[in-house]
Amino acid sequence: MSEHPSPPELASQAVVVSLPIQWGDQDLFGHVNGVVYFRWFETARVEYLNRSGLSHLMSGEGRGPILASIKCDYRRQLKHPDTVLVSASVREIGRSSMKMHHLIYSVSQQALAAEGESTVVMFDYHAQRPTRVPDDIRQQIERLEGPSGTARKNYR
Amino acid sequence: MSEHPSPPELASQAVVVSLPIQWGDQDLFGHVNGVVYFRWFETARVEYLNRSGLSHLMSGEGRGPILASIKCDYRRQLKHPDTVLVSASVREIGRSSMKMHHLIYSVSQQALAAEGESTVVMFDYHAQRPTRVPDDIRQQIERLEGPSGTARKNYR
Amino acid sequence: MSEHPSPPELASQAVVVSLPIQWGDQDLFGHVNGVVYFRWFETARVEYLNRSGLSHLMSGEGRGPILASIKCDYRRQLKHPDTVLVSASVREIGRSSMKMHHLIYSVSQQALAAEGESTVVMFDYHAQRPTRVPDDIRQQIERLEGPSGTARKNYR
Amino acid sequence: MSEHPSPPELASQAVVVSLPIQWGDQDLFGHVNGVVYFRWFETARVEYLNRSGLSHLMSGEGRGPILASIKCDYRRQLKHPDTVLVSASVREIGRSSMKMHHLIYSVSQQALAAEGESTVVMFDYHAQRPTRVPDDIRQQIERLEGPSGTARKNYR
Repeated sequence: MSEHPSPPELASQAVVVSLPIQWGDQDLFGHVNGVVYFRWFETARVEYLNRSGLSHLMSGEGRGPILASIKCDYRRQLKHPDTVLVSASVREIGRSSMKMHHLIYSVSQQALAAEGESTVVMFDYHAQRPTRVPDDIRQQIERLEGPSGTARKNYR
Repeated sequence: MSEHPSPPELASQAVVVSLPIQWGDQDLFGHVNGVVYFRWFETARVEYLNRSGLSHLMSGEGRGPILASIKCDYRRQLKHPDTVLVSASVREIGRSSMKMHHLIYSVSQQALAAEGESTVVMFDYHAQRPTRVPDDIRQQIERLEGPSGTARKNYR
Repeated sequence: MSEHPSPPELASQAVVVSLPIQWGDQDLFGHVNGVVYFRWFETARVEYLNRSGLSHLMSGEGRGPILASIKCDYRRQLKHPDTVLVSASVREIGRSSMKMHHLIYSVSQQALAAEGESTVVMFDYHAQRPTRVPDDIRQQIERLEGPSGTARKNYR
Repeated sequence: MSEHPSPPELASQAVVVSLPIQWGDQDLFGHVNGVVYFRWFETARVEYLNRSGLSHLMSGEGRGPILASIKCDYRRQLKHPDTVLVSASVREIGRSSMKMHHLIYSVSQQALAAEGESTVVMFDYHAQRPTRVPDDIRQQIERLEGPSGTARKNYR
């Protein structure tokens, strides 16, 4: 999960992880199965949450981020062997949720293979309802996204 | 994958499969991992494609259905042991694609746990581009959806 | 995971769970991928541990069963759609460990598809070392295995 | 799946692949789930088969290698984030099968986390029975294992 030199397509993405395609990621059709893309999105999302200081909130107890929805648009079929660069970037932060943007880039094809969007909600597990994204987390996300980050301009 | 008596929530769904939650479907947080929902959607989608006569087109060679995008809205956390009913229904058929609707129902909670939407494109693998949904497949889908099917009223 | 009428091949097995093969369990070769068999063994093992009263020890904290080794002998290739019956039975109990036997039976082929063997160790997570299998668990396992159980005759 | 500087523990292993642990590889107990180790073994095995010229035989049609059995001995619990080095080495070649040895090494713990053994059979899919390992494959394997390879001294 080492950082990898990012191609221009990923320039706006705050977090990029590099993952090898495993042979078993492929299905009957000889391409990486569509479900695997969501495992990769998760890996990039968790890396993002760790870097933004949300890791101590990720116990699934108390208060923490929970995935409310996620979508993938498939653009290219992927095959083993290859390496994918998978990104996560916060596009928008609301009171108790944030919208993440994900990209999957194929190193061998030198092209984007998929695009994803997810909504992460800050959740109070005891009260079983959404709660406010803490200010220190907001600041940490701003730092991660940088001055030209797509997230910044959508901050509310 | 035996048919299961469907609750009212699934009444409009053309295909419903019953799947046990496996212990290993759960993640660190003690709930079924969000990626697993997409495996279940796939299982329901394949069952639908089989019943609508698309199975002989599913070789990944020649012409066949390909997943263009898929989304999941999570509503409830799921735990092992439980059984889920997972549905697939065609909401809309275009020239070369169809929109599917999916529901996941928890038998133990007696409530919907998630909702999904996917776009399936009829694809010509040789030409590497979308192709028209064949008429016999359209008719088969109409039969599957029934007179009150949500698909029918959106047929184009 | 409902109980299923067991074929003679599974007669000696204390716990049998019924699982549908999902389309995505298949790999590039068009057969169920060998890794999936271990997910199924796990499901049967957890069901066994639950029924023998070990579930309250399964938190991964304090004291509980831990998998020390597992093996699978593959006999037949499996395909979707099909249902498999997956069993777990304790063959032998030592001071701090037990040997489990697993079978996988294909309903459509009406034949055994695989055989497994695992060693489960009762583990003290604080001390990070094996600990004695409690007497009440031993008795519960004897009950599960029954008078003709393969486990009984190997009890130590 | 880039080559990684191998620690002494892996010195005798012909093929070593480097894989990141993904967050979702962990289960309810907060450790990498035991099933995942088998996905990793597969990745190393496929890499070995590719390098020994068996890749063109891996279509699952005609003649090709098939997994007959596989075992894992677990030694250490693994956690995210970490990188594992996973190896494959042929210990023994018979007429129609070979025994592979696998190791899993945790980079963060600097220790072996698991050991595996698998039996791969050269299979004639048409005749549905084992067939002889071709001579050119044997020679390629000898080259891969090297003069001090564990495989060499067990060649038959």
